[in-house]
Parts: sequence; C-alpha cells; structure tokens
Amino acid sequence: MSPTPAERVRPGSTDRTRVRRLPELAVTDPQVLYDILDAGRVAHVATVDAEAQPYVVPVAYARMGDDVVFHGSTGSRLFRSLAEGQSTCLTVTLLDGLVVARSAFESSMNYRCAMVVGRARRLDGDDELDGLRVITEHLLPGRWQDCRHPSAKERAATMVLALSLAEASVKVRTGDPDDDAADVSDPVYGRIWAGHVPIGEQHFGPVASADCPAGIEPPDYVRSWARS
Amino acid sequence: MSPTPAERVRPGSTDRTRVRRLPELAVTDPQVLYDILDAGRVAHVATVDAEAQPYVVPVAYARMGDDVVFHGSTGSRLFRSLAEGQSTCLTVTLLDGLVVARSAFESSMNYRCAMVVGRARRLDGDDELDGLRVITEHLLPGRWQDCRHPSAKERAATMVLALSLAEASVKVRTGDPDDDAADVSDPVYGRIWAGHVPIGEQHFGPVASADCPAGIEPPDYVRSWARS
Repeated sequence: MSPTPAERVRPGSTDRTRVRRLPELAVTDPQVLYDILDAGRVAHVATVDAEAQPYVVPVAYARMGDDVVFHGSTGSRLFRSLAEGQSTCLTVTLLDGLVVARSAFESSMNYRCAMVVGRARRLDGDDELDGLRVITEHLLPGRWQDCRHPSAKERAATMVLALSLAEASVKVRTGDPDDDAADVSDPVYGRIWAGHVPIGEQHFGPVASADCPAGIEPPDYVRSWARS
Repeated sequence: MSPTPAERVRPGSTDRTRVRRLPELAVTDPQVLYDILDAGRVAHVATVDAEAQPYVVPVAYARMGDDVVFHGSTGSRLFRSLAEGQSTCLTVTLLDGLVVARSAFESSMNYRCAMVVGRARRLDGDDELDGLRVITEHLLPGRWQDCRHPSAKERAATMVLALSLAEASVKVRTGDPDDDAADVSDPVYGRIWAGHVPIGEQHFGPVASADCPAGIEPPDYVRSWARS
C-alpha cells in the first residue's frame, strides 16, 4: 500500500465531487480520505438496475493504495453489472457524535464521510488474491497468516472489484453546534445545555465458536482488535 | 408511531426485495425491520443523476410508523429529484461483530441490514413538522421539548421525505462462523482459534459547547443516551 496519496487523488476536485451543501465541511486533503477509509469497515455501494432503480448494499472493503477494493459474489447480478463497468458510488460514513444545538435546525451529528464515484474494474490473478488478502487484513488484522487461503472454487465464487480514489469527496463535521447568535443569547434557549456527545466503537471480548476445541485461546492479534 | 407493523409491511415479499445472496440470512419478520431502523442513526440513500451516475449519501432519519422519514436541503439537486419521485433506496446497516473463521472465505461480519426501495414523497404542513420532530427525537431523545423549533425560514430550507416500508429487505447475520467441516477437522486449521468478536457503540460523556454558560449541566435525557 502506498504510504502517501498519489498526485491524482484530490478530493472534491471534479464537478461531481465538489461539496455543494455545507461546503465549509469539505476536506480536500487526500490523507483524510485515506484515514476515513482505513478506519471504516462497512461501505455502502450503489448499483442501478435496468429500470433506473438504485440499490445500496453494504460491503466489506479495504483501501489498497489509491484504490478501494471490495468483494462480492460472482453469482450476484448487481456485482456483475459493476464488473461490466456500470457507474457506481461507494460511501463510508463514520459516526463520531451527536450535536446538541439550541435549535432543532442546528442539531446534527459529527461524522466523517468519504464518497468515491466512478467505474470499478474487476481484479484477476495475483491482483485478485492481493485484494482478498488486503480486505481480510483490514477487517481482521493478523489473520491472513493463520487462516486457510481461498481455494480455486472459492475464488471462482468471489469477485474482487477495485474503484480508483481519483474521484472522491470528503466531508467532516466536528465539535460544537453552530447555533445562531440569537439563540445563544436568548433568555430561554441560551439557558439550555448545548454541546456534543462523542460516540465511539467498543469491542467486547472474543467469543469462541461452538466447534472450537477447548483450550485453544484467542491469538494476540484478536485480542489487540479492541480499539477503545 | 404504530406499535406494530401494518399488514403491508412484509420484508422480502417482492421480486426486487427478495434476498438472493445468502438467502438463509433473510428475515421476513416486519418487527425486525422496525428494530433495525429504530436502532440505527445514519442511513445511506441513493440518488441517480441524468447520466445514470448514482450517489450514496448519509442522512439522519427515523422510522415514523410504516414510513422511514429523512431530511435534506431544499437547495440540494439530489433531494429535489427524490421529491419529484425518482426511485431510491435507503439502507441502514448495523455492524455487530467480526466473524473469525478458519478460512478467509468464511471470515465475515455479523450485522443487521435493512434496505427500503421505492419512491419517496415530500411531506408538508403538520406532517412535515411531525417528521422533523420524529427525526430529532430519534437522534436526541427528549430534546424536542427543550430546543427551539424550526422557524418558517428554516422549514423553507428543509425538505422532509417519507419512504414507505412496504417494499423492504432485511438481512441479519449472527454468531459463529460457518466453517467447512473439512476445515474444522483439519490438523492445521482445526487447531486455530475461531469465533466472533462482538462490536457495540460507546457514548462518551457530554461535552459542553464553548458558548454554553458555566453552571448549566447536561439534562438527564442527554446523560441517558449512553447505551453501552
């Protein structure tokens, strides 16, 4: 994985990725795009059927250099249409907190959101296996070295798609509510509590599978996944 | 809000909501659809532009009876196209854990996912205000009674859309990995730990806004939001 974003990764630089609503929340630093993708686990991907009906489906994904890679079933009609080059959009949103304003209008959420648009390409051969490894290691860091790697049959059932980060949009909201000055100084609304409530993720202890033999303990990499 | 789902809410009952991939994860109980929507905070909604390019955007939402309601800016081209009846899809995914299988192929996530398809309708008048109240109370329970309600100008800037739950799809994965019997009994892979790692949400303590006067404490409803 490339440690620093390539020149071509410039969030918000195209007409369809420029942030129009709340442009003050737009971020153009590609490192922030990387960080959001590296912190998330579930992306929402769009496909559109022949009747222009969109579908938004959750997928496991990972950043691989300047691409985001995700996988699906070769039996899925929706994934096949993506492999055929249908335009798509992949969005990762991280909820960071609740924003408690004096007005309902300014009440909001703190979040980080990365949206990538374009046409995906299907990976094959070693690139495909790399994609599977990177997705596994993103979700379950340390696991690839221990687990059984995909068989030829499993690989035939799996499609790995890559979407370039060349066209992406990043929006980040942090901190306090943006209350109107009139609400802050209002004799009623200026006297109610306002602020934000941070939200994070919590990992609980590993639960052994019913078919896991007694005495086999979770490896250190599993124990290290607790992030909070 | 209706306490029990209406007859017409039957997840998976139409051709485009029938779960084709991993049908054993499909859920047809409408109460589970309700529960997922009531537990989530961010939905991902699709719009499609004139060039058939989809966009997936995060929105605040709430369930209101047998509809899901969400809001956006009246200045947004994408929201206007939804108000005009463009087909859309709204998806809520809750990540519940990491599934650590013996094989990379069976490694997965535990999750609950609700997908709603159809055409949204724009609410107006009292229905619109109800929608705003329900969204605020879903995200910030107890807050509506305290905060300043939307002004005419704020309401003119906000669009509230409702999407019927009549056409929805629900998929839920829980518990242990589904390893192949050959992997479970394998002398190498049968000896590595397998199981799952539950993930939950964690609320941290409320943070007062910089412009919040000293001595004003967070109300009990804010303190009660900590769910874990």
